[in-house]
Amino acid sequence: MQRIELYAMQPKEIAPGYHARFVHTAHNTFSYVDVEAGSVIAEHSHIHEQVCWLLEGKFQLTIEDQPVIFEPGTVIIIPPNAKHSGLAITDCKVLDVFYPVREDYKNML
Amino acid sequence: MQRIELYAMQPKEIAPGYHARFVHTAHNTFSYVDVEAGSVIAEHSHIHEQVCWLLEGKFQLTIEDQPVIFEPGTVIIIPPNAKHSGLAITDCKVLDVFYPVREDYKNML
Repeated sequence: MQRIELYAMQPKEIAPGYHARFVHTAHNTFSYVDVEAGSVIAEHSHIHEQVCWLLEGKFQLTIEDQPVIFEPGTVIIIPPNAKHSGLAITDCKVLDVFYPVREDYKNML
Repeated sequence: MQRIELYAMQPKEIAPGYHARFVHTAHNTFSYVDVEAGSVIAEHSHIHEQVCWLLEGKFQLTIEDQPVIFEPGTVIIIPPNAKHSGLAITDCKVLDVFYPVREDYKNML
């Protein structure tokens, strides 16, 4: 059993205004992100399946040029290798779950 | 891209007082559970890694006879095959993420 206290962790700024705390398991990476209103994450893609779920706020994802605006209660599945970008319409709390583990996040300063 | 509206789904009662909405991806099962205060889930185990995170409330997990009480901000990783049971100390909202997919949940009535 592993017990992790998220708020004992120093967040990492993965893009301007995106403050992430990571939990890596044997198979997945959980990224708990506090996002400042107006913050943009530029278009990118990765081999990982990404499941995006909002706890608070209103967020716009653009996936393969298709914009989708969502709020808590919606789950978005971004398939592997799909190009996507993001915009926080308000301050947001987001949980992104990646399969497999985001090895690139493990060594992020 | 897949967009899922959790609250358009009818929850399934996986144990008395545990009302779950499932999202199955290619690799994981996400179980969004509303739990009534005092509800117990009996000891069980499964091959799946389980990552448990509380959005609201106070919950007690007992994993291999070791009790742990937690609140939002804590993430608990239950390893594959570990025996565990649960007790909702208050009304709770829980997200459990299982790897691999919970095939047994797919056909639950």
